[in-house]
Amino acid sequence: MIMFKGDMIKKREQAIVKVWSAIEEHGGQTLLSTGITGDDARLAKAVVESGVKLLEPNHPALALARGHKGVTTMHDAENIRHEIDIHEMAKVVRGVRNTIGRDPYITVGIPGGFTEVIPVELTDKDFMLMSHSGADGLHTHKSNFEDLEELVEKAHKYGLTVDAYIGHPDDLHTFGIPARTPEEVAQVAKRMEEIGVDMIGLMTGMSYEGVGAGEIPSIIKERLHALVSSVKVPTLAEGGINIENSKAFRETGVHILVVGTAIDDMVKTAAQEAVSHFINQKTKEALSK
Amino acid sequence: MIMFKGDMIKKREQAIVKVWSAIEEHGGQTLLSTGITGDDARLAKAVVESGVKLLEPNHPALALARGHKGVTTMHDAENIRHEIDIHEMAKVVRGVRNTIGRDPYITVGIPGGFTEVIPVELTDKDFMLMSHSGADGLHTHKSNFEDLEELVEKAHKYGLTVDAYIGHPDDLHTFGIPARTPEEVAQVAKRMEEIGVDMIGLMTGMSYEGVGAGEIPSIIKERLHALVSSVKVPTLAEGGINIENSKAFRETGVHILVVGTAIDDMVKTAAQEAVSHFINQKTKEALSK
Repeated sequence: MIMFKGDMIKKREQAIVKVWSAIEEHGGQTLLSTGITGDDARLAKAVVESGVKLLEPNHPALALARGHKGVTTMHDAENIRHEIDIHEMAKVVRGVRNTIGRDPYITVGIPGGFTEVIPVELTDKDFMLMSHSGADGLHTHKSNFEDLEELVEKAHKYGLTVDAYIGHPDDLHTFGIPARTPEEVAQVAKRMEEIGVDMIGLMTGMSYEGVGAGEIPSIIKERLHALVSSVKVPTLAEGGINIENSKAFRETGVHILVVGTAIDDMVKTAAQEAVSHFINQKTKEALSK
Repeated sequence: MIMFKGDMIKKREQAIVKVWSAIEEHGGQTLLSTGITGDDARLAKAVVESGVKLLEPNHPALALARGHKGVTTMHDAENIRHEIDIHEMAKVVRGVRNTIGRDPYITVGIPGGFTEVIPVELTDKDFMLMSHSGADGLHTHKSNFEDLEELVEKAHKYGLTVDAYIGHPDDLHTFGIPARTPEEVAQVAKRMEEIGVDMIGLMTGMSYEGVGAGEIPSIIKERLHALVSSVKVPTLAEGGINIENSKAFRETGVHILVVGTAIDDMVKTAAQEAVSHFINQKTKEALSK
């Protein structure tokens, strides 16, 4: 059986061109929109119409979307996210792709692609499925190099890019390869680049205590600078990014902001505001008399 | 094989108690929230936390949510909505139920439950499935009495309420049993009540041309009055309801406003506004210099 290598390199190259074009078009930094805007075709289309070029459906967000086992927070989803079937993820990607067209870049979180401390197998067919469903890449959170290398090899075989992340050894929730100091961040990033990771991110959802409104801790700035200055591939920041601190994140020079919860929260508030127009009104009127 | 009748009557009674309680709590009129707030567990939970008591997941909205065949409007979904599998609908209902708890009333649009001009079969197992998934009732749009009677009989067998709708013979999109005059509306409503329909709605999404902002055509008011005054069951208005005209609808005395598109549009706008905070900023700054 032949699996054509050159074609799959070309597929990945086209995907990375999409990413660099988005970064350039948005003046040096763009958004990877995730959460409800990544997995609901109605909202994916809406944000793409507003200029979003990068989307990320993922399995924990889908667990929330589907009310799987009643989970309502990303943290609770951590224990059951692997139960979201890869065919379900493929269906979501296909649906989003159907409505947004070929151009936007889609990277997907799949069961097995994060650090899942429960056995999850990924077959060649699974990578083929994601690739055929319309995914450009896989959004991953492996926390050691052996697992990441295996994943990169299979993803590349089927023309999928890999964005991988750097965490901190003290993280309560493991979402990347640990690096304690800015120097270690640079080392890990360089090694990731060597093994072929197509985009490298830093987990930034640490404690923001003691930091002024709109600011981010200097340690996060230092770690982001270490990342950005050590590799040539597009870089990402994920975790804790919101409207208030987005300017501070922008100034670090990181290429892509991964935002899910902050957008989801604004969308939920809008839904609550919307329904309020259609209920309780007589009660309010009665009270005002 | 026994299918217990008394228990299923009790189940329906409990469902209708939920509906009347919501109407009372909201001062005589409540909201049946549909569209994205009916089928996405994240937003269903959000609106329930804001006081919504009645939700409606349905198959055309799910076709949009899933990007099925790339459709992006409810009208386009009309041709393919029957392809949404009933097991998919059951999964959605179970997920929404998981996150909102037992109390809110859920009525569900299922393939076959609307006027589908393509053969769609519904088996006893399908009704059982919807009932077990956590649905209180079925939101239906049959357009003749024979079909409606068959549906009511099976739904009641499995303890599901039925909300059915009255349309107009000139409707471009068929969403109910036709009634040309207010007198016919009253006649159709009474016959629906006789055959056991648990809640009766009027399609109100006609042309609003020539009507002042916030107003609704007098013919719609007359038709709603005819409906409300002719039956004892809860009444609904569906179609064309938005923030501006909700007060005019409220004054007709109809018990329930079915709102989907208006809420979806506000949610989409919020998503667009949310992402705008994270893109284009450098460009904007550059332009302002």
